[in-house]
Amino acid sequence: MPRIAKDPQERRNEILDAAMELFHTKGYEHTSVSDIVKKVGVAQGTFYYYFRSKEEIATAAHERSLASRLDFVKKVVEEQGLPAVDKLRKVLLEGFPAPPKDQAILDYLHADSNSVLHQQWLVAKITAFNPYLTEIVRQGVDEGVFQLEQPAEVTEFLLVGISFLFDRGIFGWSDEELENKLRALEGIIDRLLGGKHIISADELLGINQR
Amino acid sequence: MPRIAKDPQERRNEILDAAMELFHTKGYEHTSVSDIVKKVGVAQGTFYYYFRSKEEIATAAHERSLASRLDFVKKVVEEQGLPAVDKLRKVLLEGFPAPPKDQAILDYLHADSNSVLHQQWLVAKITAFNPYLTEIVRQGVDEGVFQLEQPAEVTEFLLVGISFLFDRGIFGWSDEELENKLRALEGIIDRLLGGKHIISADELLGINQR
Repeated sequence: MPRIAKDPQERRNEILDAAMELFHTKGYEHTSVSDIVKKVGVAQGTFYYYFRSKEEIATAAHERSLASRLDFVKKVVEEQGLPAVDKLRKVLLEGFPAPPKDQAILDYLHADSNSVLHQQWLVAKITAFNPYLTEIVRQGVDEGVFQLEQPAEVTEFLLVGISFLFDRGIFGWSDEELENKLRALEGIIDRLLGGKHIISADELLGINQR
Repeated sequence: MPRIAKDPQERRNEILDAAMELFHTKGYEHTSVSDIVKKVGVAQGTFYYYFRSKEEIATAAHERSLASRLDFVKKVVEEQGLPAVDKLRKVLLEGFPAPPKDQAILDYLHADSNSVLHQQWLVAKITAFNPYLTEIVRQGVDEGVFQLEQPAEVTEFLLVGISFLFDRGIFGWSDEELENKLRALEGIIDRLLGGKHIISADELLGINQR
């Protein structure tokens, strides 16, 4: 029987998918390279052909997650006829927060020993999202629903505030404190962008409960 | 001749002062415990009676710096007859930023190996300053110069944004980018607090040039 050679990109994705699923169900710390190869049904050597270590697969998983969210955001920005407020809502509620299945990777980043990597990821995320957010805000200014100068700087400040304040690896908020701060975020977004009821507090609280 | 026993607190401060001065002139990495004791004119044993290591003296120096800035801020808040805008200006321009002489300690915190400590310090600083800032903003609301609800959450968001965005250990901005962002901060403060020309861009740029 001839050996079926898989496309390398496909194989790599397959290993990544298996790793992500295991990180999600067992937790990053309790997942070994053996667990991953067993799940995919390949030899350890195949894993090491694609990734040097479990840490490297975590980084790759994060990169893939960010890339896929950016794809989503790009499509939202390009959607014809969609008002800026709807675009902004989609980006901030669905594109910017990490999906629940990536949570195990975030937990890994929250460990003290990974704080350098964690900070670098937050910075990379803010830097990648900001041009899209700026474009949406400019559209909103044209539509007359937002009023502001320097949209790039204002959206950046907003993304920095959201990313660091609501990161439970950085601030150790209780659920109640977090809810309180998410409620206040409604007003903060309105003020910064010069709009009214852009995203409701209930919608913002929804992110936290996903 | 009888040995002159110094008050322990005084001796501790003396060692701290010498260490801070050396960190400032020689840099943290290039200062040794021997340098510190030589400058104070005490035995190594005396140093180790007060501090376990150079790292511990760096932490103590930071704590003392934060405590002294908080003392300043407390006095500003309690100053009778001073309008809220002047209080806010004093706190954000003179109290919140680390004075230039503490820069060597910040450089030490910016090293990757110290990023956990760095984050913890930023969080401690924000948490310590926010109640004072909130009180000033409440006064401003009473005076009719600021207009906002949830002052505690809004000032916290402002402090988080300022602390993380303008930290050159986290974001690697060029001088030009930093200037651009500091100019935009004028409008961001006005918007968040619901006031007008609260702190001018030139004043904000001044912090950076000190």
